[in-house]
Amino acid sequence: MGCSEVHASLAAEVLIQADLRGIDSHGTARLSGYVRLWQQGRLNPQPQMEVVHETATTATVDGDRGLGLVVAPYAMEIAINKAKQYGSGWVAVRNSNHFGIAGYHALMAVKQDMIGYAMTNASPLVTPTYSKERMLGTNPICYAFPAGMYPPVVVDMATSAAANGKLEIAQRSGSDIPSGWVQTATGEPSINAHELKQGGALLPLGSDKQHGSHKGFGLSATVDIHSAVLSGANYGPWAPPFVAYLQPHPHPVGLGLGHFLGAMRADGFRPLTEFKQHMDNWIERFKQAEPIHPNQPVIIPGEPEHQAAQERSIHGIPVIDVVWADLEQLATNLKINFF
Amino acid sequence: MGCSEVHASLAAEVLIQADLRGIDSHGTARLSGYVRLWQQGRLNPQPQMEVVHETATTATVDGDRGLGLVVAPYAMEIAINKAKQYGSGWVAVRNSNHFGIAGYHALMAVKQDMIGYAMTNASPLVTPTYSKERMLGTNPICYAFPAGMYPPVVVDMATSAAANGKLEIAQRSGSDIPSGWVQTATGEPSINAHELKQGGALLPLGSDKQHGSHKGFGLSATVDIHSAVLSGANYGPWAPPFVAYLQPHPHPVGLGLGHFLGAMRADGFRPLTEFKQHMDNWIERFKQAEPIHPNQPVIIPGEPEHQAAQERSIHGIPVIDVVWADLEQLATNLKINFF
Repeated sequence: MGCSEVHASLAAEVLIQADLRGIDSHGTARLSGYVRLWQQGRLNPQPQMEVVHETATTATVDGDRGLGLVVAPYAMEIAINKAKQYGSGWVAVRNSNHFGIAGYHALMAVKQDMIGYAMTNASPLVTPTYSKERMLGTNPICYAFPAGMYPPVVVDMATSAAANGKLEIAQRSGSDIPSGWVQTATGEPSINAHELKQGGALLPLGSDKQHGSHKGFGLSATVDIHSAVLSGANYGPWAPPFVAYLQPHPHPVGLGLGHFLGAMRADGFRPLTEFKQHMDNWIERFKQAEPIHPNQPVIIPGEPEHQAAQERSIHGIPVIDVVWADLEQLATNLKINFF
Repeated sequence: MGCSEVHASLAAEVLIQADLRGIDSHGTARLSGYVRLWQQGRLNPQPQMEVVHETATTATVDGDRGLGLVVAPYAMEIAINKAKQYGSGWVAVRNSNHFGIAGYHALMAVKQDMIGYAMTNASPLVTPTYSKERMLGTNPICYAFPAGMYPPVVVDMATSAAANGKLEIAQRSGSDIPSGWVQTATGEPSINAHELKQGGALLPLGSDKQHGSHKGFGLSATVDIHSAVLSGANYGPWAPPFVAYLQPHPHPVGLGLGHFLGAMRADGFRPLTEFKQHMDNWIERFKQAEPIHPNQPVIIPGEPEHQAAQERSIHGIPVIDVVWADLEQLATNLKINFF
């Protein structure tokens, strides 16, 4: 695509870390999607990223339509440097694109013994409570906390009841989905895995009002406002779609997609060793919470991804045939040697 | 109780603001609960609050076992002052008690054209996904954003599927509750509004694994770690109960209950007028999202509370008989003139 060596390596690293951590939907399976955006001229492979507004601990970065995979780490570096100097750092990003897994960026802060924050808005697929209109993305949010002898606690979640990837799994296997994930174009409940293609919408976390979908909507709104209203990106239904076959809104309210990254020093609040000891104790106590079924203990947030990374580091990353074929096709189209 | 005039007025103000905003469960209805904690010696009416750890933009406050209603505003003032100087301010609080509605504290920042953050851990009533043990409180979190001509957007939510107050309403009316709010002591689904008294637990937002209860658990964990692991308060099942008839854990891991307050300048990211114009546009666009039923439009987070405050400012705050009788009894016990 014409990325610099440094940017290409970093983007590859972010995608491969997703695969390594078992989040296959956000890894190399997405590579051809980014390439298609570039082919349409919607992605700048040589962005001149810059800080356009700043205080001691806050900043807004313009990503110059670059790969989110590259823009978000650039912004997080700024947040981390501010945190080193002042205790915390917060960077809003405008004019960016899909940034991969939120966890990658948040974990950059954890390596510095900081709490990491990462969120992004996304293609509008989710409806607010009481509406039938797609107004929000799956708007993921990640909080990552360093621990002592245990892996970091990483809460990395879409703010919808289910992410689009889960629908795709059901589509491939031809099965229905649970009620509470999507609704029809007229706002009726549905268990059809193909509902989005018929004008339906994903539901916020909580699924319906009675079970707190207004909370999921509130969280998604929080991500949207931090990522886009604060930065000057496109928010709500104006957020540009990731898929290249859908065009961006003809009358944008901002520039590109938005993110929000943050870093806060754990030793800004108590000595680091104390914090880590209590994080370890927190993890141990929650691991020991009495299970309903003896063979299914409580899962600490981030634990499955850490285990996947451990295992795949040794045994390799399994790539399903359809992704392999897609990568092979991509290589052919771009006249790159494939394996 | 022996509070200073300033502290008593502030605590009353926080409780009355809850009533005014229509959050009756957290207003003067709770007054006798705070008094009972004081009678048991678990609440210090004359706290010497102090900053025990600090960087330019972070601090930890020790609340000296004071009323959370007083300690949290003290901490938020510090966060706001840091934000004025450095763009953002973040204060963890240990050794505190129940702080009332999160929204009160977050809105202190909004008055300064900052984004306000407030969260607290609470009495353990909520179980993590796959567990039957009460490990977490309803752990509310609040994000509050200033707008231009519209009221602020205020996301103020328990991270459980339903707050305890909703169970109490069903208890009073003798009705069942929806499935997905609680489980039995052995982890079975339940619609019994009295389930908590029989050893059951509240469920995290998402209700079950299939609908994302691990996300609700992750959010609740995020609140617990910010409020208590970072500050040096008691976390998870060690969090001291608000009700005076339950004793605190005999082997605490920290001091009292914990909170986390934050303030971030909106003009730390873009000019304030621009931010407010886009907040107004965000609000208008979401208000206009196509409704499922024409007479039920989308509700902007914080809108019902703002409307209640407007209406109750004019017509007064309705107080139900049981709360009135409770306040009257309290006055009699404390030899205070009642109306």
